[in-house]
Amino acid sequence: MADNTFGKIFKITSFGESHGDLVGIIVDGVPAGLKVDADFIQSELDKRKPGQSGLTTSRLESDKVQILSGIFKNKTTGAPICLIIRNKDIDSSKYEVFKNFLRPSQVDYSALKKFGGFADYRGSGRFSGRITASFVMAGAIAKQILKKSNITVFAYTKSIGDVVDDESYIMDDLEKYIQLREKSSVRALNAEKSKLMEKIIEDVKIQKDSIGGTIRCIVNNFPEGIGGPVFNSIESNISKGIFSIPAIKAIEFGAGFKAAKMKGSEHNDPWIVKDGKIQTTKNDAGGIIGGISTGMPIEFAVAVKPTATIGKPQKTVNIETLENVEIELRGRHDPCIVPRAVVVVEAMAAIVLLDHLLLEGKVPSVLES
Amino acid sequence: MADNTFGKIFKITSFGESHGDLVGIIVDGVPAGLKVDADFIQSELDKRKPGQSGLTTSRLESDKVQILSGIFKNKTTGAPICLIIRNKDIDSSKYEVFKNFLRPSQVDYSALKKFGGFADYRGSGRFSGRITASFVMAGAIAKQILKKSNITVFAYTKSIGDVVDDESYIMDDLEKYIQLREKSSVRALNAEKSKLMEKIIEDVKIQKDSIGGTIRCIVNNFPEGIGGPVFNSIESNISKGIFSIPAIKAIEFGAGFKAAKMKGSEHNDPWIVKDGKIQTTKNDAGGIIGGISTGMPIEFAVAVKPTATIGKPQKTVNIETLENVEIELRGRHDPCIVPRAVVVVEAMAAIVLLDHLLLEGKVPSVLES
Amino acid sequence: MADNTFGKIFKITSFGESHGDLVGIIVDGVPAGLKVDADFIQSELDKRKPGQSGLTTSRLESDKVQILSGIFKNKTTGAPICLIIRNKDIDSSKYEVFKNFLRPSQVDYSALKKFGGFADYRGSGRFSGRITASFVMAGAIAKQILKKSNITVFAYTKSIGDVVDDESYIMDDLEKYIQLREKSSVRALNAEKSKLMEKIIEDVKIQKDSIGGTIRCIVNNFPEGIGGPVFNSIESNISKGIFSIPAIKAIEFGAGFKAAKMKGSEHNDPWIVKDGKIQTTKNDAGGIIGGISTGMPIEFAVAVKPTATIGKPQKTVNIETLENVEIELRGRHDPCIVPRAVVVVEAMAAIVLLDHLLLEGKVPSVLES
Amino acid sequence: MADNTFGKIFKITSFGESHGDLVGIIVDGVPAGLKVDADFIQSELDKRKPGQSGLTTSRLESDKVQILSGIFKNKTTGAPICLIIRNKDIDSSKYEVFKNFLRPSQVDYSALKKFGGFADYRGSGRFSGRITASFVMAGAIAKQILKKSNITVFAYTKSIGDVVDDESYIMDDLEKYIQLREKSSVRALNAEKSKLMEKIIEDVKIQKDSIGGTIRCIVNNFPEGIGGPVFNSIESNISKGIFSIPAIKAIEFGAGFKAAKMKGSEHNDPWIVKDGKIQTTKNDAGGIIGGISTGMPIEFAVAVKPTATIGKPQKTVNIETLENVEIELRGRHDPCIVPRAVVVVEAMAAIVLLDHLLLEGKVPSVLES
Repeated sequence: MADNTFGKIFKITSFGESHGDLVGIIVDGVPAGLKVDADFIQSELDKRKPGQSGLTTSRLESDKVQILSGIFKNKTTGAPICLIIRNKDIDSSKYEVFKNFLRPSQVDYSALKKFGGFADYRGSGRFSGRITASFVMAGAIAKQILKKSNITVFAYTKSIGDVVDDESYIMDDLEKYIQLREKSSVRALNAEKSKLMEKIIEDVKIQKDSIGGTIRCIVNNFPEGIGGPVFNSIESNISKGIFSIPAIKAIEFGAGFKAAKMKGSEHNDPWIVKDGKIQTTKNDAGGIIGGISTGMPIEFAVAVKPTATIGKPQKTVNIETLENVEIELRGRHDPCIVPRAVVVVEAMAAIVLLDHLLLEGKVPSVLES
Repeated sequence: MADNTFGKIFKITSFGESHGDLVGIIVDGVPAGLKVDADFIQSELDKRKPGQSGLTTSRLESDKVQILSGIFKNKTTGAPICLIIRNKDIDSSKYEVFKNFLRPSQVDYSALKKFGGFADYRGSGRFSGRITASFVMAGAIAKQILKKSNITVFAYTKSIGDVVDDESYIMDDLEKYIQLREKSSVRALNAEKSKLMEKIIEDVKIQKDSIGGTIRCIVNNFPEGIGGPVFNSIESNISKGIFSIPAIKAIEFGAGFKAAKMKGSEHNDPWIVKDGKIQTTKNDAGGIIGGISTGMPIEFAVAVKPTATIGKPQKTVNIETLENVEIELRGRHDPCIVPRAVVVVEAMAAIVLLDHLLLEGKVPSVLES
Repeated sequence: MADNTFGKIFKITSFGESHGDLVGIIVDGVPAGLKVDADFIQSELDKRKPGQSGLTTSRLESDKVQILSGIFKNKTTGAPICLIIRNKDIDSSKYEVFKNFLRPSQVDYSALKKFGGFADYRGSGRFSGRITASFVMAGAIAKQILKKSNITVFAYTKSIGDVVDDESYIMDDLEKYIQLREKSSVRALNAEKSKLMEKIIEDVKIQKDSIGGTIRCIVNNFPEGIGGPVFNSIESNISKGIFSIPAIKAIEFGAGFKAAKMKGSEHNDPWIVKDGKIQTTKNDAGGIIGGISTGMPIEFAVAVKPTATIGKPQKTVNIETLENVEIELRGRHDPCIVPRAVVVVEAMAAIVLLDHLLLEGKVPSVLES
Repeated sequence: MADNTFGKIFKITSFGESHGDLVGIIVDGVPAGLKVDADFIQSELDKRKPGQSGLTTSRLESDKVQILSGIFKNKTTGAPICLIIRNKDIDSSKYEVFKNFLRPSQVDYSALKKFGGFADYRGSGRFSGRITASFVMAGAIAKQILKKSNITVFAYTKSIGDVVDDESYIMDDLEKYIQLREKSSVRALNAEKSKLMEKIIEDVKIQKDSIGGTIRCIVNNFPEGIGGPVFNSIESNISKGIFSIPAIKAIEFGAGFKAAKMKGSEHNDPWIVKDGKIQTTKNDAGGIIGGISTGMPIEFAVAVKPTATIGKPQKTVNIETLENVEIELRGRHDPCIVPRAVVVVEAMAAIVLLDHLLLEGKVPSVLES
């Protein structure tokens, strides 16, 4: 059993492999008449693509988006949109070497048991982080639609290893934060912490090791009253989408795990009327109560595990001989995947939240004003 | 838009309200021929039901399960199974008093915006924790089926407030842990910590306050090779189910948020051959790599926020007059919901994992041997 | 694998058996604030219930609807609505006698192979026509919502055996047609043909035989532009729902099978502007082109097979001894199920079409004006 | 709202347009290890492609299949398979001329109302029969898998206009029937009737008109006990798929509409034990009782309406001026679409029935023996 389709009205179907011909996505349910901004899709892909700095993998890919269906006279038609990027730098000789070794914390063993040895193992094939480029393309379309209703989705690197930026940015001036983030090679907001994070990545790279981190995401201007109890909760659907991104191992909304240590009198967000608007004085709920949006920013954070591929010697098993062995992996990889995953997290949040709006019959007008 | 149905083959549909006639669930996709153990369903419900100790709400409910369909001659027929519990102690007069006040961190405002004032507000109606009794009933059936394949699902209270039990129990002797847990009024495993946790709950109760906590869940003997990349990942589906439980605000698999601070060389789980079996020497992956089970225990933890209903004075808004006011809530509630949520977390894990097995065509034999 | 849930936003989950405790349905996705007219639901059930005349089964059931959830202060809350009828006249002794015989054209064999002998065989259990009472209850709610937008769903008996009423009624005066139909014991519109149909049913009843027929359904005032190509076509979804009704073996939209004999110049419906409105001069398309509504009435017809249970001697097999034998079935049954199925066909059409509207974000206002 | 994804485990997502870059399909849920026979896929496409004879459209397309993902070392990997054909002969100038005229019985009006004028109108865009090439590719994969279990799907032209071949072929010698069919330019089985059908098509072509017909489909060796009551019935799912094919307006299973005129004693299929196997002496049930397969051949027939595009003068409306006008359509089209639709009907049946098997956990072994 496989499942590469997600969403109810705004529905995406992902396909492609790391070292096959391409990585692509079918985006279904896009209202007709949207002027698709291909440059924007490209700029989003560029934030994820390899080779942006010395901190990322040495794989060279231009990741140029091609739109193969669903657009006519530069606008969406209501038909499914097929977007792809081609794979070019697909030397997979290095993977052949390790074919019989279970690389620690990689899918070798579980994929073997699931797919009986037929899975494409080149560059992790269907399990590669490269698959997330498909989410970025779909997310770029979702963001364009959300923007018509002034809804913005913004994520940034909150921590790398032990360096944590704990400030509760609220995205009151989005442009400012975008500029701060784009100045940072690790997509952090605080310039000093950014340097410390960069240093950690450089260090683990030299050590032939890798490092994890966290990403925080804030959605502004999402309307109140969207979502629902039980299986229609915004948390349920965002988490379902987010855990489809490789290497994510945790998610928390609002105060998250901190809430577990709090008293109700601390955690509860008091309501006030301010500027004629009903709102809360703080947002430990992360903008969601009872699975439904409150009108406050939707906030969540995710944990990204350290890249599994490392050059350091590791203990493992030769699956053919069943002997315990030691391996040193080669191959191209990022010492820290967090900076490139920031735009992926944004994309998935945009995809899920747009679907929520469409399910409520709240279709943003996509036509040019 | 609502969504009260979950699952693909083992599919549940939840219904009912806190202070309506009943709370119920339709369980579809149960293989025919299973001898349903109603006593077991009841014993699971009993772990969740109110009034188990002085630490829980004063609401009195016997929560006796009734099976209304899908069973013939004491066995499942392949038809949908309808299970209900009746609501009895449904004095809702206290809720009328607070009808115009937005209770902090409760659904009053978001539900108002979603349902236009028509939602059943008595005892939080459809948003009540009482709805989780429906999950417990479905989970009890799922557990009976999983047990036929020796798969066990076990959860316990890992922390209440600042008291954390950080031991990495691996459920090697399940019976022992069940007994330890059932001895603890807060469903913890460590007797000393259990007392400390109990003390915290008693304290916040006296303070008319509440407290959060965490629950850890371990699934043993789940076969390797189940799940998949992208939207079929086990993390995606467990998290989708878990966030359908009210008050859950975070989830982490394996090392979870700790992974974000780790190096690859620390986080990677080395493979070894031991006792003729391929396994890892530790389990920071939480039994899932690439969305697929590895054969190691599936492990996750969740954060439960403090009960929103507290007696302490709170600032809020009168929705009719739009004035800022202060309220002191009355009504029956738990100062800490964690102990009663333990069995709910187990239930949802069992529901999701059974569906995963059925989707792979790995239908456990349900017949009596 | 079972599947008792249908629909995307207006979603129904059916449960119960012919001779179990009850037959019921969960109706999810109903907008909040609808004043549910329980009398109307009952009047719809009454059109389906047994014992309406000498032409139907002798089983006695009052089929009184009970609403167990989802309603508060007489209005829908947005929560799932649980509706049930109890089974009362459940003497199933007659079914025990035939337990080892494969009743021709009944589910005995296929159900045995599917459910391994565990299916509830009393009164055909989950396969009984009685299950359609659950669709009628859900359909009654859908009709109430559609009516707010002036959309009407009307079906009638078009033929019993060889007696066919081929007139192309267009429901210009719905009240008139309702009265004509309710005067007819077989739910036909033409009084003379009604008598002939009645005669056929009486004759087959005397012969211990049964007879089939057809039902035609017309939906007026359904808005144009709803549905879509491929898997979102109105025909796809109506047919999916209609074939969930036992005993239906064929469906055709508009000219249907007649279209197969027509030339394009005959079949094509010319467009005209009339009374300022764009419409077609005839409706061989059945109100649907390219899977999308045209604004003309949606029209379809279905074939109902003759009741499988007949008293005449029939050749069959004893499943225990594997001998070829002859049986004469007893038990209560209708000699012709068509008249009672009319309201079921209407119900399913209403359910599907309301879901189509909700999926387009065209939520009819359900509030009282 | 759009919906271009179908199926639960064997899941297809269709994309592309008649005159865009391509027509394609994502096939998800294919078990790993299947050696895909691209030549077979091509031979299936060739049966549908234009220009096979003087009876089809003059559009020239080679329709060469390209497989873009999901295959590694010539075998399926368990990842989604992307298959496409390119569009080459895409002169769409003729469609510009008719842009403001509502072509009778074509989607111009309903698509306008649905997509607000943004739909790709060239060659009917997303509504084109050309989209069914995507179903043929997916169906070719489904057939390869079904064949591993000896399940065969065979369809043929049963009628064109008034020429009907009413023989009840049972596919006892499949190879023979395939040869008969492939000898016929209209894909009929009876050589004489084939000539008469051919004559009709030639005549309507000369008359600048078109003609409808019917297709009958028989599935052999499908195992008993697959499907279910209510929404899991085989009829429900086959019909849902079949009505996703443009121009289909009716479907009947087994005796179908004939059943409506039959008595139970005529329609019921007697069970016998023959050659040690339980079977029925005839098959008016079409191999399905209670929604579940009986082990007899699954049989259904569909009606295909006459091609809407005809050269004869037709009355219609100019949508800009709202004047009643007369048009004579040009553009390439088939005078009868039935022969090319035969393989499409087979494909959809294969797709649905394979999904049914997978849902039961009856995964055919796809590995080479």
